[in-house]
Amino acid sequence: MLNTKYSEDIQNHIDQKTKPLGALGQLEQVAHRLALIQSQGKDQAVTIIEIRKPSLIIFAGDHGIADEGVSIAPSAVTQQMVLNFLNGGAAINCFCTVNDIDLTIVDTGILLPIDQELVDQASVQKENPTLVTQRLGRRTANFAKEAAMADEQVERGLVLGGQIVSTKVSQGSNLIMFGEMGIGNTSSASAILAALSESDVELCVGLGTGISPEQLALKTQLVSKGVARCAELPEQSDLSHKSVLTSHNLSPENLCPHKVLAEVGGFEIVQMVGAFLSAYQHKTPVLVDGFIVSVAAYVATLIEPNAREYMIFAHRSEESGHKIVLHKLNAEPLLDLGLRLGEGTGAALALPIIKASAQFYNHMASFESAGVTV
Amino acid sequence: MLNTKYSEDIQNHIDQKTKPLGALGQLEQVAHRLALIQSQGKDQAVTIIEIRKPSLIIFAGDHGIADEGVSIAPSAVTQQMVLNFLNGGAAINCFCTVNDIDLTIVDTGILLPIDQELVDQASVQKENPTLVTQRLGRRTANFAKEAAMADEQVERGLVLGGQIVSTKVSQGSNLIMFGEMGIGNTSSASAILAALSESDVELCVGLGTGISPEQLALKTQLVSKGVARCAELPEQSDLSHKSVLTSHNLSPENLCPHKVLAEVGGFEIVQMVGAFLSAYQHKTPVLVDGFIVSVAAYVATLIEPNAREYMIFAHRSEESGHKIVLHKLNAEPLLDLGLRLGEGTGAALALPIIKASAQFYNHMASFESAGVTV
Repeated sequence: MLNTKYSEDIQNHIDQKTKPLGALGQLEQVAHRLALIQSQGKDQAVTIIEIRKPSLIIFAGDHGIADEGVSIAPSAVTQQMVLNFLNGGAAINCFCTVNDIDLTIVDTGILLPIDQELVDQASVQKENPTLVTQRLGRRTANFAKEAAMADEQVERGLVLGGQIVSTKVSQGSNLIMFGEMGIGNTSSASAILAALSESDVELCVGLGTGISPEQLALKTQLVSKGVARCAELPEQSDLSHKSVLTSHNLSPENLCPHKVLAEVGGFEIVQMVGAFLSAYQHKTPVLVDGFIVSVAAYVATLIEPNAREYMIFAHRSEESGHKIVLHKLNAEPLLDLGLRLGEGTGAALALPIIKASAQFYNHMASFESAGVTV
Repeated sequence: MLNTKYSEDIQNHIDQKTKPLGALGQLEQVAHRLALIQSQGKDQAVTIIEIRKPSLIIFAGDHGIADEGVSIAPSAVTQQMVLNFLNGGAAINCFCTVNDIDLTIVDTGILLPIDQELVDQASVQKENPTLVTQRLGRRTANFAKEAAMADEQVERGLVLGGQIVSTKVSQGSNLIMFGEMGIGNTSSASAILAALSESDVELCVGLGTGISPEQLALKTQLVSKGVARCAELPEQSDLSHKSVLTSHNLSPENLCPHKVLAEVGGFEIVQMVGAFLSAYQHKTPVLVDGFIVSVAAYVATLIEPNAREYMIFAHRSEESGHKIVLHKLNAEPLLDLGLRLGEGTGAALALPIIKASAQFYNHMASFESAGVTV
């Protein structure tokens, strides 16, 4: 857990700034959290919050369930969008450009891989993001019919997802964001959420990128099949995390997160869970994007509850299950802009608020230094 | 009114981007509005939205009513905060720095003016904002007892406030933000809002920067006195704006805005109204900050209803009257971060979302150009 011994000093530092108490709202909470994280192991509270090389990693993966018609697009579009990322043409490229964010794309197992010729073509464009290939398979199995992946794939995915964060941290990043791309991945995220939180499937399933009412009914039915299989998994015998979860206002759950990921997960989601756990190990805060990334965050907190302390929530997605997972994570996001795109776009758009929070903490005058006599 | 002949072309341009329809939420509305504004007078819809030299102007003024104890601080603090702005130590300086915003401070009539010696001292700091002095008086009269200012001061303030916008536009700014500083100015803004919208004073008055329940009761009582005097003003005979207001979903009001400003206004609010009207004349969009700036925006729309079309609302303030004026303006702000500071901080924090909106409109690939087959 974060050592809170400097919490009061940090709050005093904020309260001495030339503004009414609390007048900067959520920015004060962000500054407090970042200062607390960066004060760990120091002999006093930091007075400068550093934001170095903010890095966004998009995990892309394909889903067997996409063949059932639960999305507006076929799996081939995942590859097309990855190429779009590499060519700099997607929304996330635009937002990374304006907010000066390092972008990396990870192929965790997309149906149609990106061969070197395509990468070389893309490389003609300047300021390309990097492509990292760490595939767990061709794509997941259709979880409405069978387990999405083997236990070994889950374990390997957790390691690989963690490695990419380790790389970014070793390259100097001290703030990380995750995004995702994968036709069918809201189905997987909804199933994980429903299974682990024991919430109604209907509440966890949403319109994704904009499916019809008929598709929504089908999607709910298929997700329910995967969730029903999860309900038959043995309950966790290890309840050592239970008290830690409760101390974070998180609800302890009965099922093993690893097993649920194998049943209904996605390659990109598994690697993101590993990435969250790695960020925690590196004491590196994560600016958390929308529904799918939040579900990965939720799974990570069930494995390591203290990981929650390094999460700042970027935005409230339009996807209906997002409010359930935000509630489970006791999270109040910064933005609510009606986004429902994924790719990490909400996180990228929230970064300027993080930078502004650091700037006021670092450079705003105190009442004393400014001679303001309130 | 904005010519909407290119509205459909602009929407098509947005809908061809590689994302599900509407998936960028409010950013799509911002891009559409800016593209429509920048397409006026062109022979086709623009495909590039330009954001040039975003400029924030803080109007500072003092209020006679401050002597009644309706604020947490005395009027002398207005000068201290203006010096803080000039020295780069306030929250707004931090947010202008991180978001690359040009900052100007206008003395519209603060109790203790900034003499040249103080400016020279401040000038030692680098990247100072400019100070513009265009004072309408020493400070307003106490509107609980008498008219805040003379009709001539209102007229002169409207002209002077407009001139500063003209200057910024002539210097190349095509996006303007306003902020304000003035101990006691939420009282004035609440009175203007209650008088012109005929809303309950209790709903229009809030905690400002954080007053006590006793101060709130006193503030409500004093604001009511000013509003009662406004209610005795003759109703407007000129109803030519009525149909235009209705066509913008704005409610036509009975009282003359100029007269209400004279009774209960503030120098900084009057100059902001002039600034909004000038921005409209220059066809320049304004990113509208919180409660007090929104009240000035509201008054401007009662004088020139078409001015509403050039307003983008930055944030939802914690000040309770803000939701009333936002409703009157039919406005849905971008941010809701629990801010209650003023200075234009909400507008400065929203600027990156404007830039991101322009960036996706300008540079995101289309389905065709990216070879995405949805």
